[in-house]
Amino acid sequence: MLYSRRHDYFCCSVGRSGYAGGEVLRLLAGHPDVTIGAITAHSNAGSRLGELQPHLHGLASRILEDTTVENLSGHDVVFLALPHGASAEIAAQLPEGTVVIDAGADHRLQDPAAWEKFYGSAHAGTWPYGLPELPGQREALKGATRIAVPGCYPTSALLALTPGFAAGLLQPDDVVIVSASGTSGAGKAAKVNLIGAEVMGSMSPYGVGGGHRHTPEIEQGLSNAAREQVSVSFTPTLAPMSRGILTTATAKVKPGITAEQLRQAWADAYDDEPFVHLLPEGQWPGTKSVQGSNHAAMQLAFDAHAGRVIVTCAIDNLTKGTAGGAVQSMNIALGLQETAGLDLQGVAP
Amino acid sequence: MLYSRRHDYFCCSVGRSGYAGGEVLRLLAGHPDVTIGAITAHSNAGSRLGELQPHLHGLASRILEDTTVENLSGHDVVFLALPHGASAEIAAQLPEGTVVIDAGADHRLQDPAAWEKFYGSAHAGTWPYGLPELPGQREALKGATRIAVPGCYPTSALLALTPGFAAGLLQPDDVVIVSASGTSGAGKAAKVNLIGAEVMGSMSPYGVGGGHRHTPEIEQGLSNAAREQVSVSFTPTLAPMSRGILTTATAKVKPGITAEQLRQAWADAYDDEPFVHLLPEGQWPGTKSVQGSNHAAMQLAFDAHAGRVIVTCAIDNLTKGTAGGAVQSMNIALGLQETAGLDLQGVAP
Amino acid sequence: MLYSRRHDYFCCSVGRSGYAGGEVLRLLAGHPDVTIGAITAHSNAGSRLGELQPHLHGLASRILEDTTVENLSGHDVVFLALPHGASAEIAAQLPEGTVVIDAGADHRLQDPAAWEKFYGSAHAGTWPYGLPELPGQREALKGATRIAVPGCYPTSALLALTPGFAAGLLQPDDVVIVSASGTSGAGKAAKVNLIGAEVMGSMSPYGVGGGHRHTPEIEQGLSNAAREQVSVSFTPTLAPMSRGILTTATAKVKPGITAEQLRQAWADAYDDEPFVHLLPEGQWPGTKSVQGSNHAAMQLAFDAHAGRVIVTCAIDNLTKGTAGGAVQSMNIALGLQETAGLDLQGVAP
Amino acid sequence: MLYSRRHDYFCCSVGRSGYAGGEVLRLLAGHPDVTIGAITAHSNAGSRLGELQPHLHGLASRILEDTTVENLSGHDVVFLALPHGASAEIAAQLPEGTVVIDAGADHRLQDPAAWEKFYGSAHAGTWPYGLPELPGQREALKGATRIAVPGCYPTSALLALTPGFAAGLLQPDDVVIVSASGTSGAGKAAKVNLIGAEVMGSMSPYGVGGGHRHTPEIEQGLSNAAREQVSVSFTPTLAPMSRGILTTATAKVKPGITAEQLRQAWADAYDDEPFVHLLPEGQWPGTKSVQGSNHAAMQLAFDAHAGRVIVTCAIDNLTKGTAGGAVQSMNIALGLQETAGLDLQGVAP
Repeated sequence: MLYSRRHDYFCCSVGRSGYAGGEVLRLLAGHPDVTIGAITAHSNAGSRLGELQPHLHGLASRILEDTTVENLSGHDVVFLALPHGASAEIAAQLPEGTVVIDAGADHRLQDPAAWEKFYGSAHAGTWPYGLPELPGQREALKGATRIAVPGCYPTSALLALTPGFAAGLLQPDDVVIVSASGTSGAGKAAKVNLIGAEVMGSMSPYGVGGGHRHTPEIEQGLSNAAREQVSVSFTPTLAPMSRGILTTATAKVKPGITAEQLRQAWADAYDDEPFVHLLPEGQWPGTKSVQGSNHAAMQLAFDAHAGRVIVTCAIDNLTKGTAGGAVQSMNIALGLQETAGLDLQGVAP
Repeated sequence: MLYSRRHDYFCCSVGRSGYAGGEVLRLLAGHPDVTIGAITAHSNAGSRLGELQPHLHGLASRILEDTTVENLSGHDVVFLALPHGASAEIAAQLPEGTVVIDAGADHRLQDPAAWEKFYGSAHAGTWPYGLPELPGQREALKGATRIAVPGCYPTSALLALTPGFAAGLLQPDDVVIVSASGTSGAGKAAKVNLIGAEVMGSMSPYGVGGGHRHTPEIEQGLSNAAREQVSVSFTPTLAPMSRGILTTATAKVKPGITAEQLRQAWADAYDDEPFVHLLPEGQWPGTKSVQGSNHAAMQLAFDAHAGRVIVTCAIDNLTKGTAGGAVQSMNIALGLQETAGLDLQGVAP
Repeated sequence: MLYSRRHDYFCCSVGRSGYAGGEVLRLLAGHPDVTIGAITAHSNAGSRLGELQPHLHGLASRILEDTTVENLSGHDVVFLALPHGASAEIAAQLPEGTVVIDAGADHRLQDPAAWEKFYGSAHAGTWPYGLPELPGQREALKGATRIAVPGCYPTSALLALTPGFAAGLLQPDDVVIVSASGTSGAGKAAKVNLIGAEVMGSMSPYGVGGGHRHTPEIEQGLSNAAREQVSVSFTPTLAPMSRGILTTATAKVKPGITAEQLRQAWADAYDDEPFVHLLPEGQWPGTKSVQGSNHAAMQLAFDAHAGRVIVTCAIDNLTKGTAGGAVQSMNIALGLQETAGLDLQGVAP
Repeated sequence: MLYSRRHDYFCCSVGRSGYAGGEVLRLLAGHPDVTIGAITAHSNAGSRLGELQPHLHGLASRILEDTTVENLSGHDVVFLALPHGASAEIAAQLPEGTVVIDAGADHRLQDPAAWEKFYGSAHAGTWPYGLPELPGQREALKGATRIAVPGCYPTSALLALTPGFAAGLLQPDDVVIVSASGTSGAGKAAKVNLIGAEVMGSMSPYGVGGGHRHTPEIEQGLSNAAREQVSVSFTPTLAPMSRGILTTATAKVKPGITAEQLRQAWADAYDDEPFVHLLPEGQWPGTKSVQGSNHAAMQLAFDAHAGRVIVTCAIDNLTKGTAGGAVQSMNIALGLQETAGLDLQGVAP
């Protein structure tokens, strides 16, 4: 336990009683510097949290409040876990000094045209991006009062390929990414295609052909790192597990680059990071090794025959991919120990 | 975070690099009053822990040491996660003041005849039983320097039925218990019947007909509570999940006892317990709601037609059922906050 | 392949595009004596079957028709896979000579009071019960034109315990049954508690305390076999798998009965049955060994200490527990080879 | 049921009592033109098949025989399910007229150098390749007496991309394939990394960087179709399910090629195939829709932004990917109806 307790921050969670919100609460419940204030909801306002999120034993008797300005006010930090399009309105009602952390997509994309193409509505502006392991991003988060939490797929994809692009080792015009996600990534939604009898024992793709909304977010992050336009083919798939993302990301290596140079670039990027682990050679990441934790496990290989580097990266979509990244960003923004409340190992087996 | 840090205890884990030992380490890594000392093993001595337990990111670079008296000495607490029959010998080599916590079966049974019948070797004596929620047991653990951690099935079964027997509401001669366990309960063993392709999508029983070694341990605990001999039919089954036990325990209710009396007995037993939760009426426990946590979730129903109370209890077999119970017992033995290092919510979904 | 083809029966399936109806179609598609006629639905009428049941490759281009008298008429056999309460009305519109096979509950219970207590509506009468392995039941099905397919839990429970009750070896007043079912048993319904992220990795009970609607059906079957009233405590649980039921059924054995007498009774009952298998001693049934097949695998043990026989029985809830039992009953009713269309092995691993 | 029974073929299965051999037996047990003769094994010779493959109810009492020339002789067809390196020796002992179908890798690769690089032993020659949907391959299998069954990954990958290469629409120098396989693909082997507690809830890669032995087999098939050298980056992953492969295969499209041309090429290739299904636009394949069946379900998308076609293909690794492909090839070799014994729908949910 590395952190010192300076003082308590009073946090509020606003959501649809879904998985992202539940995971924020799970992490905050163990955060040494945080007091959980109001927990607000929409259709479930008035319910006992223990009914909806029975795993949050320490908060079971809390009653969900309505999402009103009155209930939101007075918190140092407000976490939003809402459908896209809903956070700008709420943020506008909160004082500028309140740290607002949005787990939704609204403020991730820099390019209004990309936003409009993939989300079909007006662009609401860009907030600092809550992936501190990207070059320069940790600095950008210090003191921030508005933070856009990255999407779960982009988190894994950007962690996987950024070191190579930032170091100028990879060709920008032909990145291929295939990710397998646990079904919690599709949300806590009553849909027939998500029921257990359908998903257990089955792998299936969706959003194939460039249509998934995380595609422009991945391209944006890689292009920023490469300082030129990177083009990505991204295919998400659903795996028969509750949590976790395994991303297989591959790019053409520039002529003359060696396996040693590649490995060094990733080691340089992550050796000092508390949550991102380039595994020893010969060891491959599995999603269970990061389950319930804010860690990312990673390995790379250079396929000289195909001229490609293949990076595989495992995260928990709900933790590092959503709520853990949110709390890590909050810690940085508030000047707390970056790992506060996040010193959880993976839950395995 | 309720605990204050008084001083550090130096803990040692001795094991076969299996699931129980890994879970002890996962919990100790987050314990505010503990410093992890030597981690010892047998055949895996010399290995990097990160190879064998890749989810323990904070301990990944630790090297497993040999299990020798020299390596074990100098620790305040020693956790043993060994096959039965191995702990007595090690305990004898350690100073009396060292707290030795045995996750194995060796010192659980009071009756040498039962031990010999089910384990086929000489009885090694009985240690205080690490299930503080049983009547009188919390007191018995205070200051203890030898602790026998209960079996995972007995933990769930005794939590389920003890309140009724302790309150004199149940008939002792016809208890039926059926438990479903995740396959980690069978250990980290390379056996064909445990491989994923065999167990995924399948439920199967084993040890049927009274042969499972946890049967006498369950009868012992219930008999202690009832102050008369209780007879149990226990059937364990393997469920297609990694972790968790759901126990369905049922006993004949004495004539004239009402549903209200039953509910009250369980509420009286557990309302002040930090880890055992009698759910609100109408809510049933699922194993995922306690995954990775030291909590037990429970519900009961009175079937007047059959004259039986049916209690369902969900625990994580590796946490409350093994390593969590061990740490909770250590906390009590050492006079620490009982919940120290255990304030983890369930990891769900 | 033992059967000879006599002539084609023209079959119709009426349903909600759910799991029972899909499984009937899967089996009929491989039945040598059957031609699939109309496939009718309610809200999904007009849809391509391949959209709703993509595993039925041979029927993918079929269009679901409306459930009207016109569309139903002209079939030799009509299978109904409907919510309870809906089959009586349809059956009344069909000629007496049409074989109507109802996978719903409407015509299973003999006792109108039990029906009304558990289903809350008027009793619609009792049809021959489609579990030919019960004493006398095969005869009762010959030539039948109305057949009630048993519930999935009762199928497993009655197969498990009937031999002992029919042979007079078991006490009628204290049967305890705990079943674990795959989540397809809960239907193809868009409910949050059934989505994959919730059910994967979790076991949970429901309908505890005698409230499950299959309880009176189990008591009815066992009482018929015992020729006296049998009382049952039944607890269903949901297991993290798509298909399969593992039932653990236990009853007090009458004084003086031996393990050999018990084993002999079950052997006598099932040695000539094509679909029910008492496994060799020492081998326990797993649900995957019967997956997708009409087989039931069974083992029993006598726990002399507890005075109980414990029988474990594995079936596929959708095959032997629903659609397979329906087709087997049809075969008997029509005078076909009983195994026609059902000579499928289990799909394992 | 389309086939006519001409006469019985007497088949023999030689194996290690593993998954491939079990699946061959499951399919042959339902084949109308086949009588199962000897079932031979190595270490398990003398065992009852029902112990090792309890799902094969119709063959449970069969005793496994030793793999000797005497036991093998007299069969029309011999199926081999052996580790690589073992089939050539056995084949040499059998008459030339015996149809020998090898589920192993020994005779798949045309290039001795590729064989030696990936398998490290002397090349044993090339047999006709049992994937009749490839251009010209159905003809090549007619009358064949030695057949090499394709690997499971190559089956899915070649079905996915061959139409585009055969039609000259794709660039040969940058194919990326990522496949997710059920863990039965790793065999029925007692390995710790395959046990259920490890694999449930986890996705992990292996053989990354071009090292998987199926890589040269995929390149060979695509190069044959393209009539030029095709270069492939192939990454296999293990998914938490027993069966099934979902392959995501993507290649650069040649300039000027349209989405319509792509779709037409795949439709032309598969519209008349009994087992390969290009799904209607908007519908994506899931592995469960083909579980236990010989079907392949496929969909493609053109990502104009990335200049790539992405084809996703779902098969059952044990059926179409191994034993089903073997039986289909046998049917062609013997002049039987190609679908004989294979008219099974998927087992879903």
